[in-house]
Amino acid sequence: MDHRAVGVLQDTLLREMPISGAMGISVHSWDGAQVAVEMPLLPNRNHQSTAFAGSLSALCTITGWGKVFLMLDARGLYGNIVIRRSQIRYLRPVQDEVIRARSNPVAAEQSDYFFELLEHKGKSKVDVSVEIVDDAGPLVKFTGSYVVQEVETARDV
Amino acid sequence: MDHRAVGVLQDTLLREMPISGAMGISVHSWDGAQVAVEMPLLPNRNHQSTAFAGSLSALCTITGWGKVFLMLDARGLYGNIVIRRSQIRYLRPVQDEVIRARSNPVAAEQSDYFFELLEHKGKSKVDVSVEIVDDAGPLVKFTGSYVVQEVETARDV
Repeated sequence: MDHRAVGVLQDTLLREMPISGAMGISVHSWDGAQVAVEMPLLPNRNHQSTAFAGSLSALCTITGWGKVFLMLDARGLYGNIVIRRSQIRYLRPVQDEVIRARSNPVAAEQSDYFFELLEHKGKSKVDVSVEIVDDAGPLVKFTGSYVVQEVETARDV
Repeated sequence: MDHRAVGVLQDTLLREMPISGAMGISVHSWDGAQVAVEMPLLPNRNHQSTAFAGSLSALCTITGWGKVFLMLDARGLYGNIVIRRSQIRYLRPVQDEVIRARSNPVAAEQSDYFFELLEHKGKSKVDVSVEIVDDAGPLVKFTGSYVVQEVETARDV
């Protein structure tokens, strides 16, 4: 695991999206392809002691954002990442004490195209899918489209 | 405006979705067709001092939920409302100090079908669209599908 990158993403989330502090969002791991981001159920529960859909949506939105952040970071880049649209399906209630969302790998040709466009146009777009799963399969499925621009060489953050 | 219904929804949100307190969610108005729900920008801002997408998504999810809650409440009903899926488009950055989401009216035939199914099957589904707009048009467009079941005559809450 890349502990430096995980630490940078964690600091960035807390600084740049303050509500993630109230939600208890923390970056669990990054293996170079998949990032996992967690939050505790307690502050994010609903009336049925399962996770509130709005918190699940925010967790997935952040996880996808983190994936794009780490794709850039792995190439020594830092940019302005904005989500344009997303869709989410709530398949089954989420009731783990700690809820973990994980980005699916972005296919190599999609990643190559993303960086090519970024290099030539200074702006690019990538779709990231994120899931929350348990042993029986997916609980939540999310896909977000993220736009990246104003990219510069990574600064110390 | 139905102040009783607005108060009941406000109390229900704070009790049943605790994170809505940290987000500063409050019910602004309900005219029998459209519900408006607000949150302050400050705790929900991102690094660019515009609204964090995750908070916008949660606000819209709550607004749609509130619409279904109020549709039931208007008929003296109270039920278990769960979102099944949603999609959201972030068209322009949201930077109002107070961010207001408003549900669009549900067409009469959709509403009739929703209540017919609820009566005959004890379970029903309705799609609710929600927008955040400014003078220049929509900033965020959201559609959520909500499932309702376990309906009973409204209790004092």
